[in-house]
Amino acid sequence: MTFGTPSPVPRVLDALVIGAGPAGIGTALALAAVEDLTFGVLERGRIGQTFLDWPAEQAFLTPSFTGNGFGATDLNAVRPETSPAFSLGVDYPDGAQYARYLRSVAKHFRVPVLDETEVTAVARHAEGFEAQSSRGPVLARTIVWAGGEFHDPLPPRLAGGGLCDPARAAEAWAPRAGRVVVIGGYESGLDLACHHVERGAEVTVVDGAAPWDAGSGSDPSFRLAPRSRIRLRAAQRTGRLTLTGAHATGIKRDGAAWRVGLDDGTRVRADSRPIAATGYGPGLGAVGDLFDRRPDGWPELDEDDQSTVAQGLFLAGPAIRHGGLKFCFIYKFRQRFAHIARVIGERAGKDVGALEAWRAAGMLTDDLSCCGVECAC
Amino acid sequence: MTFGTPSPVPRVLDALVIGAGPAGIGTALALAAVEDLTFGVLERGRIGQTFLDWPAEQAFLTPSFTGNGFGATDLNAVRPETSPAFSLGVDYPDGAQYARYLRSVAKHFRVPVLDETEVTAVARHAEGFEAQSSRGPVLARTIVWAGGEFHDPLPPRLAGGGLCDPARAAEAWAPRAGRVVVIGGYESGLDLACHHVERGAEVTVVDGAAPWDAGSGSDPSFRLAPRSRIRLRAAQRTGRLTLTGAHATGIKRDGAAWRVGLDDGTRVRADSRPIAATGYGPGLGAVGDLFDRRPDGWPELDEDDQSTVAQGLFLAGPAIRHGGLKFCFIYKFRQRFAHIARVIGERAGKDVGALEAWRAAGMLTDDLSCCGVECAC
Repeated sequence: MTFGTPSPVPRVLDALVIGAGPAGIGTALALAAVEDLTFGVLERGRIGQTFLDWPAEQAFLTPSFTGNGFGATDLNAVRPETSPAFSLGVDYPDGAQYARYLRSVAKHFRVPVLDETEVTAVARHAEGFEAQSSRGPVLARTIVWAGGEFHDPLPPRLAGGGLCDPARAAEAWAPRAGRVVVIGGYESGLDLACHHVERGAEVTVVDGAAPWDAGSGSDPSFRLAPRSRIRLRAAQRTGRLTLTGAHATGIKRDGAAWRVGLDDGTRVRADSRPIAATGYGPGLGAVGDLFDRRPDGWPELDEDDQSTVAQGLFLAGPAIRHGGLKFCFIYKFRQRFAHIARVIGERAGKDVGALEAWRAAGMLTDDLSCCGVECAC
Repeated sequence: MTFGTPSPVPRVLDALVIGAGPAGIGTALALAAVEDLTFGVLERGRIGQTFLDWPAEQAFLTPSFTGNGFGATDLNAVRPETSPAFSLGVDYPDGAQYARYLRSVAKHFRVPVLDETEVTAVARHAEGFEAQSSRGPVLARTIVWAGGEFHDPLPPRLAGGGLCDPARAAEAWAPRAGRVVVIGGYESGLDLACHHVERGAEVTVVDGAAPWDAGSGSDPSFRLAPRSRIRLRAAQRTGRLTLTGAHATGIKRDGAAWRVGLDDGTRVRADSRPIAATGYGPGLGAVGDLFDRRPDGWPELDEDDQSTVAQGLFLAGPAIRHGGLKFCFIYKFRQRFAHIARVIGERAGKDVGALEAWRAAGMLTDDLSCCGVECAC
């Protein structure tokens, strides 16, 4: 197996990255800054496949701007000295645009990526880990799982949940006449709701947590992004958007319609399959058995984002949780690329000095205690 | 004279800040973090007056997002733990919104601001400086000039330049029929050009530097912001926007029209007064004589943003230049608030430890050599 580099691939890599989305490419770019480290990236589809699969209507919630060099690195950049706003010329990239950015940085910095290569199993091995892939086995001293979470949508936990279209499906975005019901009122659900309101539909969003009421917190993992708030206000002004703070308890067919029962005893009617925007699981795929779980189901990590039960297995990407902190945006989880690369590099006895450029760019958080996001005004 | 605080104002302040825009309020917020420092802010109008004076159609070029806490402090914040995106709920604030943010942070952190107080003269004094204001004299050991530059528009250097409307004037934004000519093709000129194209006018932008051709640089001080590039592309698609890479050499009335002569020998005709978007000077007002000038006319500063000829006089805001670096966005010039506050605090023998919070928020650049902004992709 070769990663497309002229030099021969060693028998055992220092690090194998699984997944070539922002987390995988970003971690690989940090690993590339460690002197003489042997590593490679395996990707099931193409670089940025998840973004290539986005519906054409979907765009980023975090605005890109080339603030690099003044402590304000582009929010969607996965490496210092790069900026989607610079290379794409847009503030809110769509999926195809962002995949283009990822391809361009991977190419520019010569990240060894082997695409169309699915990892089917990962097991511990005397030398570290052995990954089975569709192109054969790979041995690596450490593994960084960067599979993302979009391939792991959580179905709604209610009777008749199978009658829903999941939010990532193309059907959820296709034009719908009449009354549309969206289950789940966080970013993804409200994005879909606004999308259909903007196209003339009458939409009800159902969520017992009423996440559209932002409350007092300022962390975007719990509060709507400005772009979403602006769209939501516009959708509400049409009079065709209803936000219902009740939990869906069941879905039934009713002739040509669907009825969604709520825990306040009422029901809402949909003229098309209800859409489930009920979030994502950690998407651990082939490494699911190599992580312990927190009581909330998310992987248990040590302070280096490493599995607590499989030393040398790291997690990169939106599934990272530390205490109450969620790293579910690129600008959050990228803070850990250089940290993981340094831990891996130091264990391999390599020079990791070049990773200081990540710190200078504001892209390295070692001390997790400083990640509170409470704003006074 | 009192700054509205219950404690008596000392005879000589440690620091006097002149101007209550983002630079003045931001510097004052950093000074407030220095233990026991006596300081105050004088403002000619109201807090954020320049932004209150913005035309209603104008909005920020730098997108706000509450990335605070993960090394990605809101681009338009003037203090850690604050975010216009959080308090305003928008990504691109307009002038009135941003002034509201400035008022709210000034109030929350109890910045002593005396508004409606114009500083008419500043002179050196045995104890530092004496400022003459419309409410009487103020003595201060140090002065931070934060007057901004929008009150100092540079007229176009050409015959008949007086026939232009300056870009900041309300007339420049009022609806115009027929052919509109804008002299100057940087952000301000293109903003106006797009504004009039979007309202149906036919617009020609004239600039010999052709700044809309971004070239290869990635610094937003020299390259259009993503939002501007998107608007520009849309305006060009209407077929009603002409970008002319020639210098205007003169303006003449011609009956009911205006003719703008260009250095390529051609002329363009306008059906209303040409608009001059030809930039701003440093706006040094009452302290103009206390700075030496660089060959390009901008104030000469030492590495602490201090006048090279008047020790204790600092400059905050968009007029800061170091070598080829321009600090002409909030996210750039805010990098110096805590630096200036530390220099002032240390000279006064005060504890400046709390300013480390600015560094943690990515809002402190001490080393000017690290501000290059070249992006690879």
